[in-house]
Amino acid sequence: MELNELVRKTCEWLKGTGPNSDIAISSRIRLARNLNKTPFVHWANKKQEEEIFNKVKDAIAQTSFLKGSLFLNLSEISPLDKQFLVERHLISYEHAQNPGFKAVVIGDREIISIMINEEDHLRIQVMRSGFNIQDTWKLANRIDKELETKLDYAFSSDWGYLTACPTNTGTALRGSCMMHLPCLVMTKQMGKIIHAITKLGLTVRGLYGEGTEAAGNFFQISNQVTLGQKEDIILDNLERIIKQVLEHEQSARKSLLEQNKAVLVDQIWRSYGTLKNAHIITTDETVELLSSIRMGVDMDIIKDINRQNINELFLLIQPSHLQKLEGKILNSNERDLKRAELIREKLKKK
Amino acid sequence: MELNELVRKTCEWLKGTGPNSDIAISSRIRLARNLNKTPFVHWANKKQEEEIFNKVKDAIAQTSFLKGSLFLNLSEISPLDKQFLVERHLISYEHAQNPGFKAVVIGDREIISIMINEEDHLRIQVMRSGFNIQDTWKLANRIDKELETKLDYAFSSDWGYLTACPTNTGTALRGSCMMHLPCLVMTKQMGKIIHAITKLGLTVRGLYGEGTEAAGNFFQISNQVTLGQKEDIILDNLERIIKQVLEHEQSARKSLLEQNKAVLVDQIWRSYGTLKNAHIITTDETVELLSSIRMGVDMDIIKDINRQNINELFLLIQPSHLQKLEGKILNSNERDLKRAELIREKLKKK
Repeated sequence: MELNELVRKTCEWLKGTGPNSDIAISSRIRLARNLNKTPFVHWANKKQEEEIFNKVKDAIAQTSFLKGSLFLNLSEISPLDKQFLVERHLISYEHAQNPGFKAVVIGDREIISIMINEEDHLRIQVMRSGFNIQDTWKLANRIDKELETKLDYAFSSDWGYLTACPTNTGTALRGSCMMHLPCLVMTKQMGKIIHAITKLGLTVRGLYGEGTEAAGNFFQISNQVTLGQKEDIILDNLERIIKQVLEHEQSARKSLLEQNKAVLVDQIWRSYGTLKNAHIITTDETVELLSSIRMGVDMDIIKDINRQNINELFLLIQPSHLQKLEGKILNSNERDLKRAELIREKLKKK
Repeated sequence: MELNELVRKTCEWLKGTGPNSDIAISSRIRLARNLNKTPFVHWANKKQEEEIFNKVKDAIAQTSFLKGSLFLNLSEISPLDKQFLVERHLISYEHAQNPGFKAVVIGDREIISIMINEEDHLRIQVMRSGFNIQDTWKLANRIDKELETKLDYAFSSDWGYLTACPTNTGTALRGSCMMHLPCLVMTKQMGKIIHAITKLGLTVRGLYGEGTEAAGNFFQISNQVTLGQKEDIILDNLERIIKQVLEHEQSARKSLLEQNKAVLVDQIWRSYGTLKNAHIITTDETVELLSSIRMGVDMDIIKDINRQNINELFLLIQPSHLQKLEGKILNSNERDLKRAELIREKLKKK
């Protein structure tokens, strides 16, 4: 696998398949791990960071789950490529920014990715399409267990897994689900729901993680607590609440269809008309309009567009993806033109 | 010819043919005439108004130009039909509102129409597609001359034709051209141009005459002065100024295409996308979007839409036209749905 091939491939988590994939885009598990008796990344000097880098790299190379995976040393790839990986949710924004001995290992169909020397020595991520916390967790757990046979993890019988940031200590597990909630936004219920979720010890974030806005009515719901609860309890709790949010969105969709169908249909088709005809368009406007079209597809108002095509567009219209597709650096105005061209092209195909 | 047939016919002035019809929609001549030794309409009692009505009706019936025309006694048609005639520019808003012995005679392809007992006893109107003041005037003049052989007009050798409102006295002639000036609006030159035109003794009005706004970038330019100048001088002056406005719009189009083509193309195609996909739409929004599409057709940016189809839509989407097409009274919400449906239907046809 090559980095440049990724842009023409659909990652598994955008396939639009899996349970409840009309509302739950993808499920994700992230485990933070550190090597025993080794300084955390932000305490380590160059030499120590290099040692960690090599140890983890070797262990991953021997892991059965990561055969044929793509190893990317971040110091060897361009800023554009790093931003491209951020857009694909394969590395964090911080991982792309910070210099040093840093890498990411990307497995088949981008289901598995492991960041080396991000905040922790290892950040194991598994991502799948749809509402599928359990399978996602099982895979993450098996990767973790196999890596544990090759690496000596920093683990305390009192505290659990030790992490650079104390808020991750314990299970060092973060489970999340990316949800598309246009009708809860439209019926102005999201404020109330975010408030309730936060009270239950979960966190709600935007499309690009911490500190980002809920562009396109996408919300990422994840557990906040990692300490003092077993993994299965944390995930059961997360699943239960996600299910409730799912049901709320479903009933908001139903009631909007019953009470306000014409207005909804009008909004959805206008979004489609604009996307299909614009010649200059920003990322933000595109994400909002695509959100509306996706809702239309999910609610069976737009029938002849494939959900996977829409999901892919969310990614392809991002700045670095556009530039990877074009094979050159584009300024903002050039991107707005190319983005519109790409969308018109993609929406022609059924 | 029947009133109900009009809605499915294209009036000549909307054909989008004739000189400069990309910018000059239509040319119009209106002559006000009154019977000698007879009170003006607002001074006349019922009996006198009826006498005027019958005299004028008989004279028109004998006129060669109005063979096979449609005579409509306004007291015998519904408010919807009257509003429909206003939308087609066949009668004035005031003529539709005021009770009494009032009528309109409509000639073939709606080129000629004569209002009986509007502000004056006769208002002779001739309307043609494109920038065509001279031919329009010639026809109006011939109708007037023929009617003068049958009717004794109120005429003073000092003042010329006498009219109910002194501002019309003299030639009682109003010539006008309906112009589509989107690029002068876009480049913010219209204010300056209206100011200059007004100083030259002409008037600029909106799509529906006096007191209406310039919806859809349509402006009606007409002479203000009727007294103290011969008809040919008035019309030469009007023609000359319209020609200048035409040239200004042409050069604004050229410079926008040179300097801002992408933005223009984007705006035009977005308008098209919205119109082609909306499911609820008001008259005002439609007129603005159609204006943008017409500009796109005229500037060769949209190639596969016929200008006549766009011109027709300006009329068909009006409230009374929609109701005539549906054959029933529709409330505002119903019209917004039907309007969107009609537009989607019409834009499917090439």
